[in-house]
Amino acid sequence: MKARVTVTLKNGVLDPQGKAIEGSLGSLGFDGVEGVRQGKVFDIELTDRDAEAAKADIEAMCEKLLANTVIENYAIELL
Amino acid sequence: MKARVTVTLKNGVLDPQGKAIEGSLGSLGFDGVEGVRQGKVFDIELTDRDAEAAKADIEAMCEKLLANTVIENYAIELL
Repeated sequence: MKARVTVTLKNGVLDPQGKAIEGSLGSLGFDGVEGVRQGKVFDIELTDRDAEAAKADIEAMCEKLLANTVIENYAIELL
Repeated sequence: MKARVTVTLKNGVLDPQGKAIEGSLGSLGFDGVEGVRQGKVFDIELTDRDAEAAKADIEAMCEKLLANTVIENYAIELL
């Protein structure tokens, strides 16, 4: 089974990478960009198990490795 | 208005970062992980405009800056 984990910075955490992208979009002539924030996405392929168990496993992976929960949020989506 | 752009590697493109994460999950004791691929997500805040125009603008941003279309796919989602 497949799952997608999206990791984004929490509100209020500075995102210099996002700011740089915002600046570059401006220099490329794109008007009206008010903000950009960058995050990460992980597409994980797991051996088959029930959805509850998969979600619990992926939550543990996020807490231990995929996300820095001090500054990042994560969202899990089973596909 | 807000949009989310998800940029992922095309099938067949090697993803050493994903492989490293897969290995780390294994060493942490997570069984049954068959594959991990990492991508990027951009949350973009735009001044209000109609959905068609927004989608066209973001598509241009992806082609010019956000994605390397030789090796990456992108998906646009208006929120």
